[in-house]
Amino acid sequence: MTRTDAVTQTTEPAPAAELPAEVAAPRNAASAAAELEVDVAWLGEYLLGRWAEDRKASRALASRPEFWYQGGLTLDEHRTRVLGQLHRLVEKDAVHRAFPKRFGGRDDHGGNIAAFEELVLADPSLQIKSGVQWGLFAAAILHLGTDYHHETFLPAAMSLEMPGAFAMTEIGHGSDVASIATTATYDAETDEWVINTPFRAAWKDYLGNAALHGRAATVFAQLITGGVSYGVHAFYVPIRDEKGELLPGVQSEDDGLKGGLNGIDNGRLAFDRVRVPRTNLLNRYGDVDENGVYTSPIDSPGRRFFTMLGTLVQGRVSLDGASTLASKLALHIAITYGSQRRQFRGGTHDEEVLLDYQRHQRRLLPRLAQTYAMSFAHEEFLDLFDRVFSGVEDTPATREDLETIAAALKPLSTWAGLEILQEAREACGGSGFMAENRLTQLRADLDIYATFEGDNNVLLQLVAKRLLTDYAKKFKNADAGAMAQYVAGQVGEATVNRSGLRQLGQAIADFGSTARSVGFVRDEDSQRQLLTDRVHTAVAELAGKLRPASKLSPVDAAALFNRYQNDLIKTARAHGELLQWEAFTRALAKVPEGDTKQVLTWLRDLFGLGLIEKDAAWYLTHGRLSGQRAEAITAYIDDRLLPRIRTHALDLVAAFGLTPELVRAPIASGIEQQRQDDARAYYAELRASGEAPVDEKSLKKQAKKK
Amino acid sequence: MTRTDAVTQTTEPAPAAELPAEVAAPRNAASAAAELEVDVAWLGEYLLGRWAEDRKASRALASRPEFWYQGGLTLDEHRTRVLGQLHRLVEKDAVHRAFPKRFGGRDDHGGNIAAFEELVLADPSLQIKSGVQWGLFAAAILHLGTDYHHETFLPAAMSLEMPGAFAMTEIGHGSDVASIATTATYDAETDEWVINTPFRAAWKDYLGNAALHGRAATVFAQLITGGVSYGVHAFYVPIRDEKGELLPGVQSEDDGLKGGLNGIDNGRLAFDRVRVPRTNLLNRYGDVDENGVYTSPIDSPGRRFFTMLGTLVQGRVSLDGASTLASKLALHIAITYGSQRRQFRGGTHDEEVLLDYQRHQRRLLPRLAQTYAMSFAHEEFLDLFDRVFSGVEDTPATREDLETIAAALKPLSTWAGLEILQEAREACGGSGFMAENRLTQLRADLDIYATFEGDNNVLLQLVAKRLLTDYAKKFKNADAGAMAQYVAGQVGEATVNRSGLRQLGQAIADFGSTARSVGFVRDEDSQRQLLTDRVHTAVAELAGKLRPASKLSPVDAAALFNRYQNDLIKTARAHGELLQWEAFTRALAKVPEGDTKQVLTWLRDLFGLGLIEKDAAWYLTHGRLSGQRAEAITAYIDDRLLPRIRTHALDLVAAFGLTPELVRAPIASGIEQQRQDDARAYYAELRASGEAPVDEKSLKKQAKKK
Repeated sequence: MTRTDAVTQTTEPAPAAELPAEVAAPRNAASAAAELEVDVAWLGEYLLGRWAEDRKASRALASRPEFWYQGGLTLDEHRTRVLGQLHRLVEKDAVHRAFPKRFGGRDDHGGNIAAFEELVLADPSLQIKSGVQWGLFAAAILHLGTDYHHETFLPAAMSLEMPGAFAMTEIGHGSDVASIATTATYDAETDEWVINTPFRAAWKDYLGNAALHGRAATVFAQLITGGVSYGVHAFYVPIRDEKGELLPGVQSEDDGLKGGLNGIDNGRLAFDRVRVPRTNLLNRYGDVDENGVYTSPIDSPGRRFFTMLGTLVQGRVSLDGASTLASKLALHIAITYGSQRRQFRGGTHDEEVLLDYQRHQRRLLPRLAQTYAMSFAHEEFLDLFDRVFSGVEDTPATREDLETIAAALKPLSTWAGLEILQEAREACGGSGFMAENRLTQLRADLDIYATFEGDNNVLLQLVAKRLLTDYAKKFKNADAGAMAQYVAGQVGEATVNRSGLRQLGQAIADFGSTARSVGFVRDEDSQRQLLTDRVHTAVAELAGKLRPASKLSPVDAAALFNRYQNDLIKTARAHGELLQWEAFTRALAKVPEGDTKQVLTWLRDLFGLGLIEKDAAWYLTHGRLSGQRAEAITAYIDDRLLPRIRTHALDLVAAFGLTPELVRAPIASGIEQQRQDDARAYYAELRASGEAPVDEKSLKKQAKKK
Repeated sequence: MTRTDAVTQTTEPAPAAELPAEVAAPRNAASAAAELEVDVAWLGEYLLGRWAEDRKASRALASRPEFWYQGGLTLDEHRTRVLGQLHRLVEKDAVHRAFPKRFGGRDDHGGNIAAFEELVLADPSLQIKSGVQWGLFAAAILHLGTDYHHETFLPAAMSLEMPGAFAMTEIGHGSDVASIATTATYDAETDEWVINTPFRAAWKDYLGNAALHGRAATVFAQLITGGVSYGVHAFYVPIRDEKGELLPGVQSEDDGLKGGLNGIDNGRLAFDRVRVPRTNLLNRYGDVDENGVYTSPIDSPGRRFFTMLGTLVQGRVSLDGASTLASKLALHIAITYGSQRRQFRGGTHDEEVLLDYQRHQRRLLPRLAQTYAMSFAHEEFLDLFDRVFSGVEDTPATREDLETIAAALKPLSTWAGLEILQEAREACGGSGFMAENRLTQLRADLDIYATFEGDNNVLLQLVAKRLLTDYAKKFKNADAGAMAQYVAGQVGEATVNRSGLRQLGQAIADFGSTARSVGFVRDEDSQRQLLTDRVHTAVAELAGKLRPASKLSPVDAAALFNRYQNDLIKTARAHGELLQWEAFTRALAKVPEGDTKQVLTWLRDLFGLGLIEKDAAWYLTHGRLSGQRAEAITAYIDDRLLPRIRTHALDLVAAFGLTPELVRAPIASGIEQQRQDDARAYYAELRASGEAPVDEKSLKKQAKKK
C-alpha cells in the first residue's frame, strides 16, 4: 500500500537540468520512495510486540463504548462512571494478570502492563484509576507484603471489594519519598503501630481513591521502634467503613477539580495517631517482632529503601507505554487530517495538501520517528521488566538497570507525549481544539504524567547519578595517577576540539560537495558514534568538574553539584535518547530485508540525525561536527528523509493498528477528505458550466495587456 | 526590598581560595546582587505603561468575584454566566472605549485594548467573548461599514442588545481567508445580496455567539456582481429573531465542548440563499450601486483585501497582550511557590528551596526575562496600534509595519504563554495540576491563541515575506550587476565563515580566560550585533536561495519556496525575537540610573544571551561565535546572571502588580511558606526535646567507627 497521489500530482514534465537541486532532490526522493511498498500488516504485528495478544484483548475492551471517555460529565458523574468501569474490568478478567495464580491471576507481569497501557485509549482516568487499585494499592500488598498479607488483603483488593489508596506522596515532599514525615511508631504495650501525621505538609495528597471510594490504604511512613527510625515502610491501614464513613482518627479532603483525569477521586489523607496491628506492616523488606526488634534482609538502609521503591517501578514502565500510545493516536489523527486537508494554493488552481508543506512535515514526521523509537524502546524496557519480575533474570544488577532505564525513558516519553499531542492539536487548527477530536482532553489528562511517579527532572538526575557512578567504577581499581591521566586526556582532547583544530581539518576534508559531507554521518555507525560520544564525553567532563566535591564541605559540595545540575539533566536526557536510538536500531536489525526495512531505516535515520541536529551546538562546540557538515545533515533531512517519509506517512501510522473505535476523532474519520472532494467537485462543475464568475484580478490583468 | 535569606543561608565561612570558581562565582554574584534594591512600586507603574489607568480600571473589575472563572460549571452554566458578565461589562461602561464619542465611546483605541487584555485575569472566556462582540462583530461594523451602518447597527451591537457573530472562518479555509467559498451575489432585480454556502467545507465555523446567543453576524463572502468576483467583503446578516429562532435559510450547529474557553458558545453557520438588502454590504472599501456596478477607493484587489483585514489587527494586538499577562500570572504563581517550597536536602539538615536549584532557575528565570521582553514589546506595539488607529500616524507604511509586527509578535507571545504556563505547572508539581491553582485551566483556554486570529505558522510566513520584500527593495534601483555583486559578497563571507577561519582566529584570541572571552559579547552592542546579524544574514541567504524562483514555472517556484519554508519561519521568528530584544533595550534606556536599572539590565542580558544560546548552532555554523565563546556565554548565564536574578526574582514578579484577587491561586497565597515553617518548627522542637528518634544510618556509622 503506497500513497503517491499527493506527491506525483506536483510532478510535471520539465527538463531536470534546469531545476534547482533543492526542487529536484526532494521530488526525486519522493518519487523513488513511492516505488516502495510498506507491509503494513506485518509492521503492525511487529509493533504490537511480545504481548500482542494481551494488547489486542485490551484494545477490544477499549473499543467498547461503555469504557469510553464521555465529554461533558460533571465531576461526580465522571467519577461514578469510572468506578463502574473498574468493576466491569474485574468482570472481564482484565486486570489480574500480574497476580499469583493461586489468587486467580496469571503471574504474567509483562502481559499485565501491556494490557494496562492500552486502556489509555479508552479513557486515561480509567487507566490511572485501575493503576491506583491494582498497580499501586494491590501491588504494594503483593510486592511489599508477605503470605499473611496476600491471604488476608489481596483477594478483596483484586476484586475491588476493597478499593484502596496508595498513600505515599505528601504535600511537602512529592518526589522526595525518603523524606516523608508521616510516622509509624511501634507501641509494644498494645502490639500496634501508631500512624501519625505531624503537620500539614505531611498530609498525604493527590491520592486516587482517597477522596471518596477508598476503604483502605497502603500508607508509607517512617518506621520508628525503640527510639530508632528505620526509614520508609508501608502499612496496610483501613480508612473507611463499609458505609464509606471515615474511621476514627482518619481525615480526608477532596482534591476537587484537576487539570485532567477527573474520573479519579484524588484526595488527601491525614492520620491522628491511628492504630493498626503490628502485622499490618508490609514486612517483606523489614519486620518488627513483638519486642519491637527490627530486622531486615537488606542491611543497608539506602539499598533497602530503593529496593522497596523498585518493586513499584511498573508505574513508570506503564507511563512510558501509555505516553507512547497516546503519541501514536495523536499522530494517527494529525497525519490523517494533514493528508486530506488542503490550504492555500501552490502553483496550480488546486490548494495544497497540508502534509506536502515542508513545515508541516518538519512538525509531524520527526515526531513520527520519535514515536517509533519510543515504541521500540518501550518494548525492550517492558521485556526487561518482565524478566526481572518473573524471576527469570532477577539480580541486583538487572533491577538497577531496570530502574535506570525507567528513570531515563519515563521523562522522555511523557514529555514527548505532551509535545506531540500539542503539535497534533495545532496541526489540526481549530478542529484540533474541538473536544470531540480528543487531542485537548488527552493532553490535559497526560499533563500530570510529567510529574507523577517521579518528577521528570528528579528522575533524570537519578540517571545522571548512575552515569557518574558507572564512570567512577571504571577507575575503581586504578590508582590516582591513572585517573588523573585519564582526566588529563579528556582535557587534552577538549582543548584540541575547542581550539577548532580538528574541526578545521574536517571542514577542509569536506570542502566541496554537500552530498559527500553528509555521507560520513548518515550511516548507522556514525550516528551511533556521535550519539554515544555525546553522552560519554559529557559524563567524563562532568566527572572532572565534580571531582573537587570530595574535598569540599557538604554545603560547598552541594553547591558545586548544583552548578552543574542543568548539564547533568541534559546529559541524562541525551543518554535516554541514545537508549531509544539503540532500541530502534536493534528493532530494525530484526526486520527482514525489503521495502519495509528501507522505509524504517529512513525513519530511524530521521530520528538519529534529528537528535544530532537538535544538539548541533554541542557537536560544533566540541569539534565533533564542522559547520558545513551540520548544515549538510539539515539539508539531508529536508531534501531526502522528509520527502521519502512523507510518501509513507499514512502507512506508518496505519501500522499503529488504531481502528475507528479506538480513534473516535471525527476529523480522522475521512470526513475531511469528503469535504475536500465535495469542494473540488463543486468548483470543477462550476468551471465546466461556464457560469463561474470571472476573477477581478484576471480582468485587471487583461485590461493592462490592452 | 531585597530577598537574601535563601541565598545567604547557604553561605558559610570558608577560605575563598579553596573554593572552586563554580562555587564562589555564583555565590559572590548573588551576594553582590543582594545589596541592590529594586524599586518595585516604580517598576510596577513603568510596566503598566501608557494606559495604566485603563489597565487599573479593568483590573478592578477583574478583582470582583462576579467576573471570575468558576470551576465545575456545566457547559450551559458557564455560557450563561459569561453572557451575564458581558451585560455587566456594559453596565460598568467597560467595553466602549474604542467606539466613536457620538455613540457613547471615547475614540480611544489603545486604552480599549489595554483594558480588554486585563480581562484575561478574570476568565479568558469572558475576555474572548467580549472580543467577539466588541472587538470583532461591532468592530467590523465600525471599521468596514460607513455612516449608515454605524447609525443603524452600532448602538445595539455596543449595548449587547444585538449579540453578534463574526462569520469569517470557514471549516475548509481557516487562516486562508482570501479563499473562503461563501458567496454574496448581487441580485439587481430585488436590490439584494444573496448569501450562499455552496458546500460543507464553506460552513462558517468556530464562531463565538453562533451556537446560541448571536442574533446577527458580519458575514465575510466573495462579492459577486455582474458575473465578476471582487473578492472578500463583509455583510451584515441577521441570523436569529428576537426569540432566538434561526431565520429562514440560516443553519447553525453547536461546536459543543472545546479544549478550553467553554464559556463561549462557538458554533457553525451556513446560509442557503439568504437575502439581505444591498445596503447591508459594509461598504467602506468597496460598494455596489443599484445597477450592480462595483466601485472601491482601493484599486488593487490584493491591497484592498489586506486593508480590510488590517482594520481587524486589534485581535492580534490583544492576544499578544493577553498572553503576556497570563505569562506574568503563571510566573507570579510558580516563582512565589518556588521561593517557599523546599525539597531534598543540600548540605545541611534543612531542605533546599526549589528556586535555589540551578535547574529550577534555568526553567523559570529565562521565562521571566522573556516575559519582560514581551511586556515591553507589547507596549510599543500597542502604542503603534494607537497611533495608526487614532489617525495620528495613519499611513500605508505604518499600517504595513503594524501588521508585520502583529504577525511577528502574536506567534511568539502566544506560544511563549503556553510554554510558560506549562513550565509553571510542572514547576509546581502536583499542586500545579490542581484546578484551584489555575495554571491548567489558563493553559487550556489559551491553547487556541496559537492558531486563531491567524495560525502562528502562517503569520510567521507573512513576516518572512516582508523581510524578503524589504531586502529586494534595497536593490530595486540597483542594476543586476550590483545585486549579483552583493550576493557574491554574501557567499564570500559565508565561505570564510564556514571554513572556520574567522572562528579559529576568534578562538585563538579568546584562548585562556573564560571571563575575558564572554566580555566581548555580553555588552549591549554585541548582543544587538549578533541578534541583528542572525536575521540579516539569514534573509540574505534565503533571498539568494530563492532567486531562481522567478525563472521557474509556478509549480517549481512553489516547490523551491516550500523547500525553504522551515528556514523562512525560523528567520521570521528570529526577527520577532530581535524586535522584543530591541523593545526591552529601549525600555531599559528610559529607566533612571540605579539599582533597578542594574537588575533590569541583567534581565535583558539574560534574554539576549539566552536567545544567542538557543541559536548557538547557527552562530557557530556561521562563524559568528567560537565554541569557546559559546560555552562562555552559557557559563556567564549560570555563574552570574541566574544567581543575580534569582536574588530579585520575587521583586521582579511583585512588579507585575498582581494582587491576591487577581492571582487567586492558593499555592501562591503564602500557604506553602506556612506549611514549611510549621514543618521546620516541628523538627526544631523535636530535636530540642531530645525525643527525636535516632536515624538508623547514623547508628550504623557509629557502629562502623567502633
